[in-house]
Parts: sequence; structure tokens; C-alpha cells
Amino acid sequence: MAESAIAQAQTRVPAARLSAFIARALIAAGLPTEDADIVARLMAAADLRGSDTHGVIRLPLYLRRIRAGGINVNPNIRVVSDRPSAALIDGDNGMGHLVMHRAAHLAIAKAQTTGIGWVGARMSNHAGPAALYATLPLHHDMIGLYFAVGSNNHLPPWGGSETLLGTNPMCVAVPAQQEPPIVLDMAPTVAAYGKVRLKAQRGEQMPVGWMIDREGKPLTDPKRADEGYLLPIGDYKGSGLSLIIGILAGALNRAALGRAVIDFVKDAGKSTNTGHAIAAIAIDTFMPAAEFKRAIDGLIRDIRGSRRLPGVERIWLPGEQSHANFLDRNAQGIPVPKALRDSLDAVARDLNVAPLG
Amino acid sequence: MAESAIAQAQTRVPAARLSAFIARALIAAGLPTEDADIVARLMAAADLRGSDTHGVIRLPLYLRRIRAGGINVNPNIRVVSDRPSAALIDGDNGMGHLVMHRAAHLAIAKAQTTGIGWVGARMSNHAGPAALYATLPLHHDMIGLYFAVGSNNHLPPWGGSETLLGTNPMCVAVPAQQEPPIVLDMAPTVAAYGKVRLKAQRGEQMPVGWMIDREGKPLTDPKRADEGYLLPIGDYKGSGLSLIIGILAGALNRAALGRAVIDFVKDAGKSTNTGHAIAAIAIDTFMPAAEFKRAIDGLIRDIRGSRRLPGVERIWLPGEQSHANFLDRNAQGIPVPKALRDSLDAVARDLNVAPLG
Repeated sequence: MAESAIAQAQTRVPAARLSAFIARALIAAGLPTEDADIVARLMAAADLRGSDTHGVIRLPLYLRRIRAGGINVNPNIRVVSDRPSAALIDGDNGMGHLVMHRAAHLAIAKAQTTGIGWVGARMSNHAGPAALYATLPLHHDMIGLYFAVGSNNHLPPWGGSETLLGTNPMCVAVPAQQEPPIVLDMAPTVAAYGKVRLKAQRGEQMPVGWMIDREGKPLTDPKRADEGYLLPIGDYKGSGLSLIIGILAGALNRAALGRAVIDFVKDAGKSTNTGHAIAAIAIDTFMPAAEFKRAIDGLIRDIRGSRRLPGVERIWLPGEQSHANFLDRNAQGIPVPKALRDSLDAVARDLNVAPLG
Repeated sequence: MAESAIAQAQTRVPAARLSAFIARALIAAGLPTEDADIVARLMAAADLRGSDTHGVIRLPLYLRRIRAGGINVNPNIRVVSDRPSAALIDGDNGMGHLVMHRAAHLAIAKAQTTGIGWVGARMSNHAGPAALYATLPLHHDMIGLYFAVGSNNHLPPWGGSETLLGTNPMCVAVPAQQEPPIVLDMAPTVAAYGKVRLKAQRGEQMPVGWMIDREGKPLTDPKRADEGYLLPIGDYKGSGLSLIIGILAGALNRAALGRAVIDFVKDAGKSTNTGHAIAAIAIDTFMPAAEFKRAIDGLIRDIRGSRRLPGVERIWLPGEQSHANFLDRNAQGIPVPKALRDSLDAVARDLNVAPLG
């Protein structure tokens, strides 16, 4: 029994099975089948890339928000402003994945016609990792850019001690020919809040530079995280990046920013009015896509093969480790640790759907 | 005499006089009058904003490059690829200011028609501070974005010890109503190379975190800067940002990036094939511009008025100090320190034009 329990704890699940489970749960929670399928595929795709904090692990929270009335399961997602290369989508408080899936495809269509497409979204929700959407244009030989307002404010402006800014993520994805795409998916803080929670769970201290307390002194005890603030990268630069990302994704779309951002975990019943923006740039405006992608291959190989600092085993390109995760998990399945499985089993019982299996 | 020398050292010069001097020098160096006027106005505008390292101080270097054949004074700057919302400009190795002035106005025109315009440039040159161009769309109620490949490689990829990347700048400018615009103009390194040179001139040490040596150890002696590398903000994040900015501004436009980037100071006679990109986003695609600008005013005031860390006198918004410089220098003139005046006097003698006066 003990051995079987360990085997169970180490189980890997094929993405298709995980996706099917997520879809069952979302359908039981009230989403139309087609919508549930789109969200489920995107959530499983996050886990395939190794975004363990932004994929299926969020399902219980999403379901809690749906149940509390914080997410609309039958949204009328619509384009409220439309010009040849830019548009604004109102998500009607639907699942963020649906809103941004729609926005990304609209941006791609506009880029095909005019060279670049930029689509903003308001009244959306948490949509998983930024890379899910920034990488969609890659399939059309386009560069993808994505910006979002984080679903909570963890960051004061530089010099401040009031959390008016979030770990607003940005992602830029660039296609290569034989090499994996370059995908820079980052928040403008030194550490993600999820990493702080992980340190707390493990009973470890945080390094100096991750957080400060209310006096501006280094905070290294992750159990005291509520008493402090995440630090931006590059001091005022990261703070400025968070603000700019927030403006492009939030203010420009009449979405929440600054004092209007609520805590989407604590305020499960309230609409977050999350804002995002996505852009697609058609490479063939500038040069033949094949030539560009070969040049990116060359750049990647120059960087990977360049001289390393002592003790560095390998130089990684942005997105390369996520790509390695994808190859591994696509072949071997997505690791589902015991705690995650337990929470998904609870979801299955709760919604009376077949478990992950 | 001593007092008069001090007064001279502290002289302030009206922007118009500085601009007229720059134009005289550039005309004497071979630029057509109209082109010289555009470059001169932009260079003086850099000094007005307080970009003391990127304005008139660069004139002797530009002139040296022109004389050495590294810059074309009669370029055929032309659009080589054109779609409704995106275009590529070939600068024919002309002054970067001319190329990006043209690119910015093309991006603005496209945004007026389609909602967003994105223009890349190749075969350009150093164009001064990023904010010069990112702020041009502000006058049309647009958000401006600018990216450039730095005119030298000072940065290895994260983990590496070969300088394949530059302090590639990015700038995003957002208009406000009564408040100064938000202008985030930053390179993805902790310190600019100019700051390192300044520490060396003053005989001061650098703080830990600015640079590392070839072993990856902190480098704090600015006189040894040649033996080390600038550090990116946020470790791999800043390195990734430099790469992405380089791709958007360089690789996408067939401009130099990575190993193809030359040192524009040492290789004065060679064309740099500098790449830039500029985008303009028409705010009225998303909401009435006046409403957006009022919202940005509110956001600025929320941030400025928010609680501060102990010892912090004021929270500054990105671009606010540059705006304060502009107000001061526009009224009182641009400070011209003795060393700068001497170098401009040498330029005047050299080109046989009337000095700054």
C-alpha cells in the first residue's frame, strides 16, 4: 500500500486526460461545452509548459469564483470598438481564457490584413500564464506581445508603501526555425508571489532582495509576507514597468488598475474587471518569415554557444526551459502531485463528475 | 578673471541658441539645411529634458563619424516595405535622428488611419534618447513605444561572459491631461555605461550590483570597467528584455544585433546598421482621449499621494523629473559646463563656424 501510494503520488497524467477532466468540471459548473473545451485546453497547455502555478492548480479557485458569482459562465464576449488594426473587447466577466483566446485570434487576423494587430480586453478575468496567448501568433509567423494587470496588488510604487501596483506580467514570443521559440514571460518583480508562498510552505527563508517590510528593511521570513512588499526588478525601473504594463492592459481598456484592483482570491464574488492586451506583428511586413526565423536560430545558437561565467553549465534562452518541459510532459504526461490530485478529487466529488483517474 | 571664469563655467544657454549652433556645425559638416535643423532641434530637446549624456555632448562624436565616413550626410531615407499599419524604413546610414523622426511620423499617420502604427528602421544611427521619439505620438493623443539596439555591446547573456547584448533602450510614453506625461525611458541594465564613466571621472567606487568581472565577481572599481560587464536588472529578466528589445528593433528590421553590433565610438568609419522600432497607439480606438487622460491624471495623483517609506520625501512618476528639467531649462536655459563648452568651441574652430556664444 505504501508503495502504491508513492506511485500514485508520482503519477503523470496525459494532457488530454487532464484537459478532459477540467472540461467536465467547468461544464458541471455551468460553462457551455465549447467554452469549457477552450478553457480546459489552455489550462492544460499551461501545465504542459511547466507553469505549475498558473494551470490546473487554479481550477478550484476558478470554480469558487464561479459559484460565488465572481465569474460569468455565459458571457456575451463582444468587440465594442473596432478599427482596421486595433480593437477593444468586453469580456462580460467571462473566464479570462475565453476572452484572451478571442482577443488573440482577432489580433492575428488584423495583423494578417494590416501588418500588426493590437487588441485590448476589459471585464475579463485571470487567464493563466501570459505565454499561452503571446505564443498563439507564432503559428502564423508573427511575433506576439501580451500584457496583463495582475489579479492583486502586491507592489508599491518605488519609494512608496501602499500596494497600488501588481506583478503585472508581460510576454513577448518570437518564432525560430529549428530552435524553440524565444518566449520571455516575466513579471517586473524580483520574485513571484508564488515563490514566496513556496518558501513559507517549505519553512525556508527568502534571500535579501525579494521583499521589504513596511519600514523598507529587507524581509526574509516568508511567513511575514503579509507585512511587506515585493521588490521590483531594477528598483524604479521595475516599478515603472509595472505601471506601464498596467496602463497598456488596464487603463487603456477601462479595466481595473491601481486602487480599483481587488484581491481575486479574497473577493471571490466580485468581478475583477481584469484588463489585458495582445499584439501580433506579421513578420513578412519586414522580411520573409523563413529568413527571419533562420536569423533567430543563428542568434539563439550564438548566445547558447557563447563563453560562460565560471560555474555556469549552460546558457538558457528565454522560454527554452518551458519548451523542454513541454517536450517532456507531452511525451511522459503532466506530473500531478498528491496535494493537487486530492484537490482535484474534491472538485470531482463536489461537482459529481468523473475524477481525473 | 577667476570670477568671470566661474560665471562662464555656469553659463546657461537658451535651447534655440544651442540648436542654432548644432545646425551650423552639421551644415558645415555637409548636412542639408533642413536635415540639420531637424537633428539640431531633437538634440537640443534631449538637453532640455536633462538627457545630458545623449544630447549636444554627442555632437563631436557624430562629427567624427561623419568625417570618417561612418555616417551618410545625404541619405536617401526611404520606406522599403509598407502595409496599412506597419512599415520598414531604410535609413541609408543617415543620422539616426532623421531616420526616427521620419519613422515616428509615419507610425503616427498609420495609427490615425488604422488605430496603431508600427515602423521599424534599419541602416540608421545613434538617435539620442529614446524619449525623443516615444513622446512624439503624445501630441496626437497617442501612446508611443520605442525600442532600439544600443550602439555597443556591454552585456553578456545571463550566465555568459561574452558581450553579445547591449543596453538596448525602450521607452513608453503615455499622455495625461494636466499632469506631465508618464515617460518610462530605460535600459535593461542596473546602471548605464555613462554612470560608470562618471564614477571613474570622479574617482569614486561603484556599488556592488552594477558590474561583475570576468569571473562573475562584483566589480566596483570603475577604472577596471573594461574588464567586466554591466549587470541586467532582475538577472535573467533584464538579459531577456535586452534580447527581446534587440529583436524588435534589430533582427526584425535586418539591422545589426549580437555579433554584428560594432562599437560606434571605436569604429567611427564603419556603418553601424543601427535598428529601431517605434509604435503609436491611437487612444480613441479604446476610449475618448480626454477621458483616458483624466484617468491617467487620477492614477498619477493616487501614486504621488500614496503612503511613502520612511525617509522618502517624494514619489516620482516615470518621466516627471525629465519634465521638471524641461520646465527649468526651457525657462532658464540649458546648463553648459566648461568642458562641454570647450569641446563645442573646438568644433566651431574646426568647422569654421560661429561659436555657441
